[in-house]
Amino acid sequence: MTEVETTGAWLSREDLDNARDRLPMLYVHAVPVRCDDKGVVTHIGLLMRADGDGTIGQEVVGGRVLYHEKIRDALVRHLESDLGPMALPRIPLSPQPFTVAEFFPTPGVTPFHDPRQHAVSLAFVVAVMGDCRPQQDALDLSWVTPQEAATLAATGELGGSHGVLVRQALAHVGYPV
Amino acid sequence: MTEVETTGAWLSREDLDNARDRLPMLYVHAVPVRCDDKGVVTHIGLLMRADGDGTIGQEVVGGRVLYHEKIRDALVRHLESDLGPMALPRIPLSPQPFTVAEFFPTPGVTPFHDPRQHAVSLAFVVAVMGDCRPQQDALDLSWVTPQEAATLAATGELGGSHGVLVRQALAHVGYPV
Amino acid sequence: MTEVETTGAWLSREDLDNARDRLPMLYVHAVPVRCDDKGVVTHIGLLMRADGDGTIGQEVVGGRVLYHEKIRDALVRHLESDLGPMALPRIPLSPQPFTVAEFFPTPGVTPFHDPRQHAVSLAFVVAVMGDCRPQQDALDLSWVTPQEAATLAATGELGGSHGVLVRQALAHVGYPV
Amino acid sequence: MTEVETTGAWLSREDLDNARDRLPMLYVHAVPVRCDDKGVVTHIGLLMRADGDGTIGQEVVGGRVLYHEKIRDALVRHLESDLGPMALPRIPLSPQPFTVAEFFPTPGVTPFHDPRQHAVSLAFVVAVMGDCRPQQDALDLSWVTPQEAATLAATGELGGSHGVLVRQALAHVGYPV
Repeated sequence: MTEVETTGAWLSREDLDNARDRLPMLYVHAVPVRCDDKGVVTHIGLLMRADGDGTIGQEVVGGRVLYHEKIRDALVRHLESDLGPMALPRIPLSPQPFTVAEFFPTPGVTPFHDPRQHAVSLAFVVAVMGDCRPQQDALDLSWVTPQEAATLAATGELGGSHGVLVRQALAHVGYPV
Repeated sequence: MTEVETTGAWLSREDLDNARDRLPMLYVHAVPVRCDDKGVVTHIGLLMRADGDGTIGQEVVGGRVLYHEKIRDALVRHLESDLGPMALPRIPLSPQPFTVAEFFPTPGVTPFHDPRQHAVSLAFVVAVMGDCRPQQDALDLSWVTPQEAATLAATGELGGSHGVLVRQALAHVGYPV
Repeated sequence: MTEVETTGAWLSREDLDNARDRLPMLYVHAVPVRCDDKGVVTHIGLLMRADGDGTIGQEVVGGRVLYHEKIRDALVRHLESDLGPMALPRIPLSPQPFTVAEFFPTPGVTPFHDPRQHAVSLAFVVAVMGDCRPQQDALDLSWVTPQEAATLAATGELGGSHGVLVRQALAHVGYPV
Repeated sequence: MTEVETTGAWLSREDLDNARDRLPMLYVHAVPVRCDDKGVVTHIGLLMRADGDGTIGQEVVGGRVLYHEKIRDALVRHLESDLGPMALPRIPLSPQPFTVAEFFPTPGVTPFHDPRQHAVSLAFVVAVMGDCRPQQDALDLSWVTPQEAATLAATGELGGSHGVLVRQALAHVGYPV
């Protein structure tokens, strides 16, 4: 999860760090997909990102929801921030997420882990129709087939929590995980 | 519900009528909507249709699923059949419908009624991006705001079952029905 | 929304007030229902509560999610806190809420309003099988039929945001709102 | 999928076979689970059944929806028929299935295959609280952990289509498939 939004956000870094020790943070995640004209998912978009400690992992789009920001606006902001301004995402019509991912700072409490904080994420599958270019701290963006994504997630190349999210997204769109 | 698909379908009219007395028929319905680039529904598309008995009512898109036809293909076919070939519908990524509408031939068993048959319909909200023109037996297509649709459905101008479907769809996309 | 959980919580009242001005708060809401053995909702449970300013309104169960608390645990805690320890709630099997209610401190931004804060709530319909007694700051608990709940919500006796939540819940369980 | 319901049903075997060649059949499936008092799935119930050709496979509960039968009633009937009259299933409150499984007579069209027919199934996860005993043509009922179910499904002991259904159900309840 990236923190590109902290510059110019409503909280200083110190205050945010303080709140992170005391409150669950609200996040959104979007599994970016390409689909055909019948809504069949043909590709999953994976971002390659370097974490703070230098390890490189594959992730989906996501980040924090800001104070007084709507879920839809947060989704648009993070998709644009990660995939560029020409991605043309189709933001879901319903606020119902396909799942809620609970990232705990303690490993093993749930299938999702974030050493920095307790983050609760509303997860959506989002079709993107335009031209995507990795932005900010993303090193690369690759489009893989559902089969490749499922394999990557099972073998661990697609990092723990995000691998789970991708496989749950694949199940939701009807793919045989 | 229209029966435009029976010409050239797998069943003769007689056989279909016979099956309708003995088996639940599988249907799909699509509530066609316009949305902004954040996925907020701005308009609902309503088809004006003359029923067999000459009464005119407002309906959403829908019809039967054929033998060996996928749900996605049935959605595409009925959207094209009712809204024309340039409607550019965004077929949902997930097979999960927002509701299942059970139309019973006996009124009052469920909120949905179809005097001709027992039809079970998978209902989806479908954004259409292109140019829509009523086809076949639809007399007119009108785009109304969510507020107008909710009012039409409550006052009965938007016929019973389809009014319920529209209001349940509005609730699903977050509108305060 | 009640704040029974602040006693013994991880944040002082001052720190919580401070965070409320800067971050979206994560909430859960549960629409408590009675159902028959086929899962048909027969009654909705409404809590009568006095707000800080002395006005009395009807509400559903809900409250804040604490740091390092799972969504399921927060649901259990608030159901027990509002309905008593013998309510025997059937916590949903899936983390997928039927909707996400975005309460904004500014009225009119969304259908949900909370003057104290920006709260994002995961909303569930929860069947309760046991003996329910209003607890804490709830003055009364009444069980009304879906028809009565829909009417209460439309006429305004069931306060704004919670009325919307109840009607969206009714739509989700198949009731003709 | 069992056909225990054909005795006394509305269609003769011949008529049903005839319709099966021409129309999609409407089915329901229920993945039976045990859960704790926080709604966490602890076990999945798998039925061992001998198919017509003598091969033995593991399956979940399911079967056809009859003419003029509600989805809820079909779920109750098949759960009772497969698990016995004391299973005490908690039928879902919402008609929204977690997925729709399209069984095609031609293998490979979808992840679901039924050589006898084109069947479209509304799939639900159903907690059962009572005493379950395999009935009718089920040879055995075994309760396995989510981990065991996921492994069985991946290794093929839990037959193709039903294995996919179980894994999609596990993903829906938040399990890391």
